[in-house]
Amino acid sequence: MMGGAEIERLITLLGRLPGLGPRSARRAALALLRQPHARMLPLAQAMEHAARAVRTCSTCGNLDTCDPCSICADPSRDRGLVCVVENVGDLWALERAGVHRGVYQVLGGTLSALDGIGPEDLNVAPLYARLEAGGVREVILALGATVDGATTMHWLHDSLSRFNIPVSRVGQGVPVGGALDVLDDGTLAAALMARRPA
Amino acid sequence: MMGGAEIERLITLLGRLPGLGPRSARRAALALLRQPHARMLPLAQAMEHAARAVRTCSTCGNLDTCDPCSICADPSRDRGLVCVVENVGDLWALERAGVHRGVYQVLGGTLSALDGIGPEDLNVAPLYARLEAGGVREVILALGATVDGATTMHWLHDSLSRFNIPVSRVGQGVPVGGALDVLDDGTLAAALMARRPA
Ligand SMILES: [Zn+2]
Ligand SMILES: [Zn+2]
Repeated sequence: MMGGAEIERLITLLGRLPGLGPRSARRAALALLRQPHARMLPLAQAMEHAARAVRTCSTCGNLDTCDPCSICADPSRDRGLVCVVENVGDLWALERAGVHRGVYQVLGGTLSALDGIGPEDLNVAPLYARLEAGGVREVILALGATVDGATTMHWLHDSLSRFNIPVSRVGQGVPVGGALDVLDDGTLAAALMARRPA
Repeated sequence: MMGGAEIERLITLLGRLPGLGPRSARRAALALLRQPHARMLPLAQAMEHAARAVRTCSTCGNLDTCDPCSICADPSRDRGLVCVVENVGDLWALERAGVHRGVYQVLGGTLSALDGIGPEDLNVAPLYARLEAGGVREVILALGATVDGATTMHWLHDSLSRFNIPVSRVGQGVPVGGALDVLDDGTLAAALMARRPA
């Protein structure tokens, strides 16, 4: 063991972050340890603040410090246009691209026979409630062009048909087999523009 | 801004870690935000503990929770064999490989004309003190085979000559232009075994 249990634990926990292997976790730990007051404590405090402050929006499933989230609460957003995404990372990607002026519904996953994820595991009840309440003119399905994404869009299309509201899906621009949140802004914009009835 | 200032700040600070770009910083932030109690708070606490507990060993320059560090304080380590490394990451690499049974001296950098790093910027005084105190039989220079590493080893060889103690350098096994802490254990072992007089 090098540098005591504290350093080992720091490296272990950093190494569990997506995108950080053991080697980059060590490099990150060293960078933090070299500047404990300028770098490590501010990051620790940012994590504690975020852990305390951030909650899941009960309307759309977004993560924010307020509920409803700042998107749902924004009077300038078009509540008649609901974009369904798999996860908050995809919502962030669309917001960075600035290509959707409506609101969102975050499913929290896709249907997956392999992972045993069924309709009851998806955060879709708030969407039904919004559609029942009226005022929604269109639902845009913005899921990745994976097998599970396509299955989910197909199922959503069926399950939303009873509301008699146009359901479209992002089409052109999403590469087959690709996830949504790796795409550049232009591709995301094209995919939204080229949406077609689901 | 998505998800409030707390999330933005978390992503910004994570993105400053080596090895994490903006995209992986967002993924890491999301992974932490999804499990604030199981993942984010433990990491925040590990950082605070480490920031409070970890100090620089006044003997060798290693990072540890005690001073002298656990290597300097370990009676089973050979104090007669001092291995000079550029930074703590290189020390960790040698310790992981388990190829050095002596102690260390961490320079904290290499000479660099470009970066304006001169001999006075290197943590070498504790090494002089140890050599003056006696008992050191050999100094091993384990710096990377970069231009600055070679310059530093040359300068150290000269500056240590007055102590009349054999100075060797890691040789075979360190690729030209390569850093030490990316090497596999076998290569590090070979480089140490094949050391030659500097
Ligand atoms: Zn919301
Ligand atoms: Zn030490």
